[in-house]
Amino acid sequence: MNINGQNWRSIWLQDGGNSISVIDQTKLPHHFKILELSSCSEVVDAINSMVVRGAPLIGVVGAYGLMLALLESPTDKNMESAIEKLISTRPTAVNLRWAIERVVRRVKPLKLEERVKAARNEADLIAEEDVSMCEAIGKNGLTIFQKLLDKRPQNKRQNPLNVLTHCNAGWLATVDWGTALSPIYKAHRSGMQIHVWVDETRPRNQGATLTAFELAKEGVPHTLIVDNAGGYLMQKGLVDVVIVGADRITYTGDVCNKIGTYLKALAAHDNNIPFYVAVPSSTIDWKLLDWRDIKIEERNVEEVTEISGLISDDTDQPHLAKVNLTLPGIKAFNPAFDVTPSDLVTALITERGVLGSNQEDLSRVFDLP
Amino acid sequence: MNINGQNWRSIWLQDGGNSISVIDQTKLPHHFKILELSSCSEVVDAINSMVVRGAPLIGVVGAYGLMLALLESPTDKNMESAIEKLISTRPTAVNLRWAIERVVRRVKPLKLEERVKAARNEADLIAEEDVSMCEAIGKNGLTIFQKLLDKRPQNKRQNPLNVLTHCNAGWLATVDWGTALSPIYKAHRSGMQIHVWVDETRPRNQGATLTAFELAKEGVPHTLIVDNAGGYLMQKGLVDVVIVGADRITYTGDVCNKIGTYLKALAAHDNNIPFYVAVPSSTIDWKLLDWRDIKIEERNVEEVTEISGLISDDTDQPHLAKVNLTLPGIKAFNPAFDVTPSDLVTALITERGVLGSNQEDLSRVFDLP
Repeated sequence: MNINGQNWRSIWLQDGGNSISVIDQTKLPHHFKILELSSCSEVVDAINSMVVRGAPLIGVVGAYGLMLALLESPTDKNMESAIEKLISTRPTAVNLRWAIERVVRRVKPLKLEERVKAARNEADLIAEEDVSMCEAIGKNGLTIFQKLLDKRPQNKRQNPLNVLTHCNAGWLATVDWGTALSPIYKAHRSGMQIHVWVDETRPRNQGATLTAFELAKEGVPHTLIVDNAGGYLMQKGLVDVVIVGADRITYTGDVCNKIGTYLKALAAHDNNIPFYVAVPSSTIDWKLLDWRDIKIEERNVEEVTEISGLISDDTDQPHLAKVNLTLPGIKAFNPAFDVTPSDLVTALITERGVLGSNQEDLSRVFDLP
Repeated sequence: MNINGQNWRSIWLQDGGNSISVIDQTKLPHHFKILELSSCSEVVDAINSMVVRGAPLIGVVGAYGLMLALLESPTDKNMESAIEKLISTRPTAVNLRWAIERVVRRVKPLKLEERVKAARNEADLIAEEDVSMCEAIGKNGLTIFQKLLDKRPQNKRQNPLNVLTHCNAGWLATVDWGTALSPIYKAHRSGMQIHVWVDETRPRNQGATLTAFELAKEGVPHTLIVDNAGGYLMQKGLVDVVIVGADRITYTGDVCNKIGTYLKALAAHDNNIPFYVAVPSSTIDWKLLDWRDIKIEERNVEEVTEISGLISDDTDQPHLAKVNLTLPGIKAFNPAFDVTPSDLVTALITERGVLGSNQEDLSRVFDLP
């Protein structure tokens, strides 16, 4: 997508395919910095430190990470060790495991000297498929937006469609287009009047930093709010539709996504506002019946007690600095995801169309892997 | 309440009754600083800048502010002008208007030279009544906590009662004891095992700064969470009861409180967790039938886009600094309150007992003012 008129993706090959480049998402929106990752351990660090994040992007980066491991040594032993390191970085997102297993299935039967190239090809394929799936999600979501506008009285169709989103499910969370933001980009590019309420998304503020950055660069009108404000906006009739991404969905349609998503789903339900989840099929966990079995990642409490931002002081140019928000020694708890039960989800927007958030629709449209 | 073993109130008279002292709540928990306010305009500034906040405390400070205005000049004209300035500081809290009108009713019939003393007496009375009401709320809330424990199976009664609260409705928001935190203090002092989940409460972080400070100083076990996490905790069975304060309630039982309260009420309802609102009767708006008529204060967007915290850098002792969280020029929206409809409220905890959040119960127990 666009940054200052130029087209970007969130990840690309470098050095004749022997390394990958990514945007350092921990520095956005204040600094735009490219990082080159040329080993599996650099990829593991990049995922752990959230230089890259977002379930679909983590999947693609993980696939390339396995390629980089094979470049170091293509043995089964090295491959097994890399798989374990990569998968243990983020336990909740299902795309990571899915993408790595795809690469493994492709390279395992091959001779050692054929493995790197095959892994690179498979990772490339996963990346390109991600772009196609996200673009298709955009087109399918756009039809929903159009229907919402069509239902309005004639004299209100010119008012912007107000969309609320939580966290970042944009192109930075995927390879391109994004999931929840893809229909928004499609709508904006088609000339539809659209306005986005951007949830800040504490504690890591991916809404305030990443979603707002993406929308600003693409020129989509948007307004930042704290996570607490969404219910009030819905009570006041200022939200037409909620759309979020997901880190994992059960095959019965329950949605595991960034912490706080569930609260917005409850508020949407209470105010008769449609609540959509945009997901590529790689996000479906076909092994999981009960969302209570999803392992919810608990992250460092410093994400709650400290925050980074741009500071202007006497000595320097504005620079990134961290401030402490609390008394020293405070106890905190930082679960990264919650689950929105399927009955609060109006529908899933997938690359194969808009589906009910239930087992029947999902298994009708997708083949069990 | 306690700070390092000493008893404190949030406001007290100084200088023979010719000024008031307050704790600068914008500097907590990092710095503990007392401010002396000796004119009505200093009081107006202190309310505007949120040096003092919390509906009951604002009411008391407003009453003393009117006394200070009369000290400057006890004429009707000066009084009218002071009333207008004081009331316009915070449009949503009803206690402010209520307290000021009480002082006015007391002094208006009096000769000019009698007015200051009468205003001081009335403000003193409002302050003392606030302490009594809050302590009574604590006792009434404690009976609810005890019943929740009694309902547990015998072998689980020793596990701590997990209470979730939003924003700060503690002694810093009142004169002493607090509203929502008063039952927690009563429980803790009675030896009950109690643990508090403290919502951070963006954008001003009154939970992370003020509630956590109060609980730490009083020795009540607590854990800080981001506002997004409450729903997840309730899904996981980690919350026994939610208790919050209010800035205004309609006489039909709808609750206007800090932005985000409504989302927690929805989550409590969805998980069959009781949701209580602790209010002194001064918070009831007897003129308001429909919550949609409550004027919701919209505050500066810098509360969303900037944040203050303690920074450690090379040159200084750790000191307070402000960082920018977003791209320059971002549009933001910052409503300060939302409304929890009465049907999501299990009951109101008032100084006269635990009441249904409805007109029948409220008008049965309280006289229309």
